[in-house]
Amino acid sequence: MADDGFRTSHGDFRWDGVDLLAYKQEGSAPFKDITRQTLFADTRLGCELRYFEMAPGGYSTLEKHQHVHAVMILRGEGHCLLGDQVRPVAAQDLVTIPPWTWHQFRAGPDQPLGFLCMVNALRDKPVLPSAEEAAALGKLFTAAN
Amino acid sequence: MADDGFRTSHGDFRWDGVDLLAYKQEGSAPFKDITRQTLFADTRLGCELRYFEMAPGGYSTLEKHQHVHAVMILRGEGHCLLGDQVRPVAAQDLVTIPPWTWHQFRAGPDQPLGFLCMVNALRDKPVLPSAEEAAALGKLFTAAN
Repeated sequence: MADDGFRTSHGDFRWDGVDLLAYKQEGSAPFKDITRQTLFADTRLGCELRYFEMAPGGYSTLEKHQHVHAVMILRGEGHCLLGDQVRPVAAQDLVTIPPWTWHQFRAGPDQPLGFLCMVNALRDKPVLPSAEEAAALGKLFTAAN
Repeated sequence: MADDGFRTSHGDFRWDGVDLLAYKQEGSAPFKDITRQTLFADTRLGCELRYFEMAPGGYSTLEKHQHVHAVMILRGEGHCLLGDQVRPVAAQDLVTIPPWTWHQFRAGPDQPLGFLCMVNALRDKPVLPSAEEAAALGKLFTAAN
């Protein structure tokens, strides 16, 4: 962060002094074509604010955990799995992800999907699905499309 | 909040199930033409996320306090006072407001200025400026325009 408190947007969802973290992709990873930028992680705040963006066809990690996510879609459109529901999401939509609820965001085929995620600074590690769970949850997206 | 976790945007920065709070305007109030919507105030999160919007020519409360604000501009453009600096701000810009730092956002004359503000759920009450302080700080905006 710049010392003066201001961090200017570059446009296109990049910012001065904010690193872009591209997740390493491996065969079994439950995510695809997603980047993370931590916009605020000030120790004087109880939460962090991160910006995630998936390329067209990309998706966030399929996971669940104790901590809560508060999400605002910032750009594009796609679908969100929450528990056993898959719903279309678009810019400005809000999603609250309660504890121990499977969730995943998937960008549509034609444009990126970007969202803000507010989360407790101190939080537990996500649990990933088994292959069987991932397959069953993935079918919910197929049914919703 | 809807029970299912999803709150759809109406477009134009309004949301299902989110009340719009318009501040009562009085002669001496250090704000003008501003509304607040609390997007997330989940007790399981250490912070809240609010959306503030000023009409063209409007401005947020001129204030300072112990707690920190983490701000992302969402729409429009205007200026931000932070300490003894006034800087232009536009969509996607980030501002960190440190403890005990005078701050105010002002929309430009032609369009609204909207921003997200992340803040600790437990926080102290803002201090307002004296008439002399407000006048001196207001001059910084005049100099920046």
